[in-house]
Amino acid sequence: MSRKEFRDLAPPERARETIDSLDLGGGVERVPLREARGRVLAERVDAGIDVPGFDRASMDGYAVRARDTFGADEADTAVLDLVGAVHAGAEPDVVVEEGTAAEISTGAVMPEGADAVVMVERTDETDAGVEIRTSLAPGDHVMFAGADVAAGERALGPGTRLTPREIGLLSALGVSEVPVRDRPRVGIVSTGDELVRPGGELQSEQGQIYDVNSYTIATAVEDAGGEAELYPHVGDDYEEMGRVMVEAAEECDLVLSSGSTSASAVDVIYRVIEERGELLLHGVAVKPGKPMLIGTLEESAYVGLPGYPVSALTIFRTFVAPAVRRAAGLPEPRTATVEARMADRERYEGGRKRLMPVGLVESGPSPDVGEADGDEAGTDKPVTLAYPVDKGSGATTSLVEADGIVEVDADTAYLDAGEPVSVRLFSPDVRPPTVFGVGEDDPALSALLDRVEHPRYLGIGSRQGLRRLGRGTPDFAVVTGSIDRDVEAVDLGGWTREWGLVVPEGNPDGVEGLADLVERDLRFVNRTTDSGLRTTLSNALASVAEERGSTRHKLVESIDGFDLAVRAHESPARKVVAGRADAGLGLRTTAERLGLGFVSLGEERVSVLGNPDRIEKGGMERLREAIDEWSFEDETLPGYRR
Amino acid sequence: MSRKEFRDLAPPERARETIDSLDLGGGVERVPLREARGRVLAERVDAGIDVPGFDRASMDGYAVRARDTFGADEADTAVLDLVGAVHAGAEPDVVVEEGTAAEISTGAVMPEGADAVVMVERTDETDAGVEIRTSLAPGDHVMFAGADVAAGERALGPGTRLTPREIGLLSALGVSEVPVRDRPRVGIVSTGDELVRPGGELQSEQGQIYDVNSYTIATAVEDAGGEAELYPHVGDDYEEMGRVMVEAAEECDLVLSSGSTSASAVDVIYRVIEERGELLLHGVAVKPGKPMLIGTLEESAYVGLPGYPVSALTIFRTFVAPAVRRAAGLPEPRTATVEARMADRERYEGGRKRLMPVGLVESGPSPDVGEADGDEAGTDKPVTLAYPVDKGSGATTSLVEADGIVEVDADTAYLDAGEPVSVRLFSPDVRPPTVFGVGEDDPALSALLDRVEHPRYLGIGSRQGLRRLGRGTPDFAVVTGSIDRDVEAVDLGGWTREWGLVVPEGNPDGVEGLADLVERDLRFVNRTTDSGLRTTLSNALASVAEERGSTRHKLVESIDGFDLAVRAHESPARKVVAGRADAGLGLRTTAERLGLGFVSLGEERVSVLGNPDRIEKGGMERLREAIDEWSFEDETLPGYRR
Repeated sequence: MSRKEFRDLAPPERARETIDSLDLGGGVERVPLREARGRVLAERVDAGIDVPGFDRASMDGYAVRARDTFGADEADTAVLDLVGAVHAGAEPDVVVEEGTAAEISTGAVMPEGADAVVMVERTDETDAGVEIRTSLAPGDHVMFAGADVAAGERALGPGTRLTPREIGLLSALGVSEVPVRDRPRVGIVSTGDELVRPGGELQSEQGQIYDVNSYTIATAVEDAGGEAELYPHVGDDYEEMGRVMVEAAEECDLVLSSGSTSASAVDVIYRVIEERGELLLHGVAVKPGKPMLIGTLEESAYVGLPGYPVSALTIFRTFVAPAVRRAAGLPEPRTATVEARMADRERYEGGRKRLMPVGLVESGPSPDVGEADGDEAGTDKPVTLAYPVDKGSGATTSLVEADGIVEVDADTAYLDAGEPVSVRLFSPDVRPPTVFGVGEDDPALSALLDRVEHPRYLGIGSRQGLRRLGRGTPDFAVVTGSIDRDVEAVDLGGWTREWGLVVPEGNPDGVEGLADLVERDLRFVNRTTDSGLRTTLSNALASVAEERGSTRHKLVESIDGFDLAVRAHESPARKVVAGRADAGLGLRTTAERLGLGFVSLGEERVSVLGNPDRIEKGGMERLREAIDEWSFEDETLPGYRR
Repeated sequence: MSRKEFRDLAPPERARETIDSLDLGGGVERVPLREARGRVLAERVDAGIDVPGFDRASMDGYAVRARDTFGADEADTAVLDLVGAVHAGAEPDVVVEEGTAAEISTGAVMPEGADAVVMVERTDETDAGVEIRTSLAPGDHVMFAGADVAAGERALGPGTRLTPREIGLLSALGVSEVPVRDRPRVGIVSTGDELVRPGGELQSEQGQIYDVNSYTIATAVEDAGGEAELYPHVGDDYEEMGRVMVEAAEECDLVLSSGSTSASAVDVIYRVIEERGELLLHGVAVKPGKPMLIGTLEESAYVGLPGYPVSALTIFRTFVAPAVRRAAGLPEPRTATVEARMADRERYEGGRKRLMPVGLVESGPSPDVGEADGDEAGTDKPVTLAYPVDKGSGATTSLVEADGIVEVDADTAYLDAGEPVSVRLFSPDVRPPTVFGVGEDDPALSALLDRVEHPRYLGIGSRQGLRRLGRGTPDFAVVTGSIDRDVEAVDLGGWTREWGLVVPEGNPDGVEGLADLVERDLRFVNRTTDSGLRTTLSNALASVAEERGSTRHKLVESIDGFDLAVRAHESPARKVVAGRADAGLGLRTTAERLGLGFVSLGEERVSVLGNPDRIEKGGMERLREAIDEWSFEDETLPGYRR
């Protein structure tokens, strides 16, 4: 069987309709009231009993016949014989005949014959009996049976979500088990030879990676009110994979798989669907999501999601989650979508509808966007800004760098800065960060951010960080090295860190400085050009070159691995640990943490630069406080000082 | 020991501070990633591994040394020897030496020696080897190890709520167990002799009622991110009650009890707290909530809530839930508060801060309120209106008739119609009804409402319903009987129902009509004066009186029980079932459903009257459709017709 091509991509609306046409369950189950929180009532519940179930005294006092008090007042009291007492939670053992009264406490059952309660404050107990200083009407201070809820009344309708108050009403009615909508059962089949479940041992040299989609989608299924079942990962045994898919279909209302890079796995899926079900749609004109499959398998629904995590979550959230919610009887949560404005102009080369992952950031009290529409410009209301996150759909980090999706129509040429957009959040619990920074990757910064609630920080390097600060999207940038770029910013403070060469434990090659890299046959590992630390290294090399009457370029050429650049602060040190380099550009703190040797080459200043338009926002105030309060002694950060 | 009096009520702020000063736990537990949804990270998680863990081909094609392709183009191809193939999920068994290439698939490990991938589309396999029609730079179509996440990078900070995307990132890092904040453990002790757990058998004649607060508060604890534990109800054994409270304190971070009407129970609580802990505050100057207690018990926190369900939930939501959330590390959900405007002027006789339960209703697109503030008046934006629900705090139905609480300061004399208020919802999942009706209690209406999503209906009778429609708060009113009140309304349709006397099965007294009630010694049960059905009965009696040359008043006087009025449509029939009446005012459908006899007295029209300002709102459109579509044949409703 040859691999299918997606020649005719279905319009996204048809994908929605096709999924909506599938049966995702919708049965009824009975659950104990105590476990019914968040569930959705499947049937109407009418009151089966009166609440209260008896005529109930609503005051402490005396139960009487109202008729016996007619005309009584302070001057002319009615005196009744005291014939007994009735307490809450006890059956009255007294009858109130004409001319008599019984003591009664709040909540107690009205004794036979009595039709009103006189408050204790309007009475005196005397030798003659109970003296009553007021006239009563029948029903005074009595809550009649059924006055709260009467048997036969409609209590809660079908489709009602059970929150504490509904649980309370059902308790009052004595209901201990409630008929609720079944949670659609969603089976998740993991395909892909190279996937390993988190916690399993990874054979990186064999190209294995951890399975991201299974847990992500399972969690998203639960967010949507479904019940997720993970099926065992079967690796490259295709017969077994087919068997697992059929098993999942037999046990679940919906089976999900997510794309595999392996052609054979895709072929197996096709074969299973065609033999045991029906393929209703393959390929949708959205980006990402082209390779989406929709069909049936045995008696169940089947959807094949794309393989890349952000794409898989995007397609799930856009097409599948609404159907799961509907089957569960749950409305789309009000927090599932937020209104935002584009932080910057974004061009789009159309063709297919685009589901664009975006990050969110709140502007300060005085936003400088929103000019496209007069509504909020110039007001003090903070505006939520959306900026595209496009690291390539293969990146799992996009999952946490983006907050949701903006749908961009195929015929949209661009979205302007300030243009209003609706952002469908990846989960109703997603909140925009309180503060959003970009720039140099730094272990002290990592610890500092722990002191700020819900920050977002992208370690894209000093150079990219400054560039983005210049464009005004982030709240702050963290930079080091002497980067030549003029950006308007507020200095929020900073610290100094010791940098140099990270070498194997004990410095077996006896490295003493940069000269060794230039002169000797040592394998070096550098940082990428966006890193401010690399700029610091380059500046130091320029000084060495000057001393020697050479050029920096010549020195660089003689360093083996100067262009072998890795991304994060710890990455060169890891290469040293792995024995794949003799020296790496890094920090003293990293070397000490990993038990490596360190050759100090100097100190560099790390500065936190604030976006002037965002200085007033709450998260930024908290960040400033954290920088000011912070003492490096709290942390194990050798080589750092204020 | 004498019962305590609340002489010095603490200001509400002090109650808040006192609860905040208590230790509600805040430990750390490790949970499997698969079960971590919604939990809050207790510690920062840094990447322990590079993602990907190897240099990874990001295209199908050939792995080459870029240097070997320098200068190649369509006209002048580079030809390399094919030395093997590498597939995803397999360890390369080939080395790419100078002048060679290896076939490679997306996701596969780059073989040693190779530093770039050429897309299959830019190549040809010939007898001479692989012909390459383009020049490559090192790194082309390769995702380097750590390019997505580098080991040592900050992945997620403490306090991060784990939604699907964070679960995804943790999966990518291979994390299978995460350190999360402990859920505060909250023990709920039910006090009150008269309480029975839902599902238990109720002895109404002994004044027993179902325990509403235990389940309500347990559910609210879970809403706030706590773990609720219900302790066995111990009835009136006070020694046992003390023992259970101490046990709860030993096992939980916080113990809650809710007020009892029984003085002895309160005394036991005082004694236990004073002997085994400390009473920090008793009595708070809020309405409701005066009898609130705050203290410690053993090593735990203790809060005593009021006894009435709405009061207990109000106090929990206002004072306790924020502390539980904080201990759980959860923010107040964004949906927990809504902005609304007062539907009507509400006077307040101050003294204590009032936590006023309110219901919510959305105005239509053209609201006629909001005049107090020009903002929204006259615009097409729907406004959420808040109206006080005050059925007396003892009513459990208030739980579902109110949506949340408005705090009214002690010195506020009144809230004006249209005044903006913040409503703290009883639960973040509470939504205002799509449509809000009031009026006659009717079984056909109950079934009709099942066809409308999330309606609210208060069966307050035709008379009260019309009155409230006249004041403009509800969306619609359902009325029957000829009620003499001039209210501007839109007739949305209606139906006709057969009414009469409900009598015991087989009509043992041979009742034939109203004359029997007047002339014979039969015990009758009527409906309350708000009921339209009672008006219909009164009109029928007036006709009988006219025929007889008598007055309605005289006829009524001779009916035993004419003033014995019960509230809901089924209530008189229930009295007949219980043998406490020989005939009750009711409907044919009720009699047939309960297996009783029925003496028909006629038909009456039930009309659904719409609030003219709300006709456009979505829920009202749905209601109209439901009335129009509805055929009574779908339901078992004998005696009904269009």
